[in-house]
Amino acid sequence: MNIAVIGAGVVGSAVADLAGEYGHTVTALADSRSAALDPGGIDVEAALDRKRTEGVVGDADPERAPEAAYDLLVEATPTTLGDAEPGFGHLEAALARDRHVVLANKGPVAERYGELRECEAASDGAVRFEATVGGAIPVLSTIEDVGPDHISAVRGVLNGTANFILSRMAAEGLAYEHVLAEAQDLGVAEADPSFDVEGTDAALKCVIVANVLADGHEYTLADATVEGIHELPTSALELAAEDGRTIRLVGEVRDGGVRVAPRLVPENGAMAVTGTRNIVQFETTHAGSLYHSGRGAGGPETASAIFADINRLDDST
Amino acid sequence: MNIAVIGAGVVGSAVADLAGEYGHTVTALADSRSAALDPGGIDVEAALDRKRTEGVVGDADPERAPEAAYDLLVEATPTTLGDAEPGFGHLEAALARDRHVVLANKGPVAERYGELRECEAASDGAVRFEATVGGAIPVLSTIEDVGPDHISAVRGVLNGTANFILSRMAAEGLAYEHVLAEAQDLGVAEADPSFDVEGTDAALKCVIVANVLADGHEYTLADATVEGIHELPTSALELAAEDGRTIRLVGEVRDGGVRVAPRLVPENGAMAVTGTRNIVQFETTHAGSLYHSGRGAGGPETASAIFADINRLDDST
Repeated sequence: MNIAVIGAGVVGSAVADLAGEYGHTVTALADSRSAALDPGGIDVEAALDRKRTEGVVGDADPERAPEAAYDLLVEATPTTLGDAEPGFGHLEAALARDRHVVLANKGPVAERYGELRECEAASDGAVRFEATVGGAIPVLSTIEDVGPDHISAVRGVLNGTANFILSRMAAEGLAYEHVLAEAQDLGVAEADPSFDVEGTDAALKCVIVANVLADGHEYTLADATVEGIHELPTSALELAAEDGRTIRLVGEVRDGGVRVAPRLVPENGAMAVTGTRNIVQFETTHAGSLYHSGRGAGGPETASAIFADINRLDDST
Repeated sequence: MNIAVIGAGVVGSAVADLAGEYGHTVTALADSRSAALDPGGIDVEAALDRKRTEGVVGDADPERAPEAAYDLLVEATPTTLGDAEPGFGHLEAALARDRHVVLANKGPVAERYGELRECEAASDGAVRFEATVGGAIPVLSTIEDVGPDHISAVRGVLNGTANFILSRMAAEGLAYEHVLAEAQDLGVAEADPSFDVEGTDAALKCVIVANVLADGHEYTLADATVEGIHELPTSALELAAEDGRTIRLVGEVRDGGVRVAPRLVPENGAMAVTGTRNIVQFETTHAGSLYHSGRGAGGPETASAIFADINRLDDST
């Protein structure tokens, strides 16, 4: 397929970089300041090289990227809350032209799901967004395959940064602030870690799952009950350990509710993944519980989920 | 969709029983001795009831089932080795009529994969077989989504009976024969357990995975190196435990080879699932390792995988 990639951060760059290996041609690559456009296929290596050295991917106007030549648009700009722009506008423009859209950006699916489905219904293009939940882990495609009607609950450890901090606090008996500083040094936590440690990121992922499970009723971040790990004392982890348990930031979608909070889980149980790994439990009506674990973030990991979506759209056309 | 179900054992019965809930109509149900046929939809409850009380599902000749009215045939007769009959013949008959086929029977995919793909290529129908590997766990659809070219190895605990026996031997320090008898009492092991404990069942599943990974080269059971658990002394599990490890019957597909054997795994690691649970690890090129675990057998569990296949075929037509 000919694909346009909007967003040239970690994820967008990985998609552009790997597209050739997956049999696709990148006809547009844009960041917030610049774009490289070529209906015959851009020179991806040169564009990414220029991004590293000059901070731009090409000489074209990024506003032109949604109007470029492509079969499928990959939206990988940073997640924004509320109006979810500019991501939503890119999606809208592509669907209006009957093109497919694959999202890595959580905003449009978490904050404007109803409108997204309306735009999709009016288009010959389709929207997929596996990469918005759980990185490389097939979460949404599993819900699709099992069938939303046959799943009673989805819960999981969906934020690698928070999980890294909790694992280290538990293993070393260190305080939150200490481990956070360490995580920032390692590049696992951002300078402003609030999006991860306050539970917003996990909540957005759960809201997306809730939207997919309950096609019809629309959820946004405002519907989620969210508690982070930033006020969790090390003593709570020590108490849990005395009982053979530990604490994980667990997101849960069940009975029409979305909740993210630190929860006690068995120390050697499936949910106690360590480091930046993610895990998702699907409680099904007829097949017991399924557990999927894997890398929940990272450029190539997230790109892998995007290519899975592209693959499914390619098969259906 | 209108579906025909051939095989009315645990899996076939569950498929027939749940079909209505998934929006499908059962137009044929057959076991080895009898069949119930009705182009408008059979009375599933009555057929299954009659199976329990009289040992037949209806008054029709089972030979007529492959020629009945249906869009999709579910093949759920017992797995046979070598010529994989009568399963292969049912598949052939359905494809010759341009109908889709979903297999729960491992024989045709493990023993005659090349011919199966030839019959499929000559038909407007397609073949799927998620239920043949790992019960409810999405194994083959994950390989399809990630892409066979982007997976370097697949390994897993794929036989619940063997895993139940090993977990109990390790936990209680009991001998193989003792635990086997217990498993037989519980219905977890069959009267003749050789198919499970000698590794044949796990090997068939790995051969199927190998066929899917290496589209082009054909594998059969003869290509697998297989060692079971029936000669494993309890002392081996005790030795492993002293080192923080345990033993699992692990099937592995990598570098063009298929191997099933008892292997040491970390006691609290992902591969050390207990009881009848299964787990599969996918080693990917770009997204690290994915782990999927869940129930590897059972009627509704296996039916759930069959409905996922039906769903994908329904979407594509």
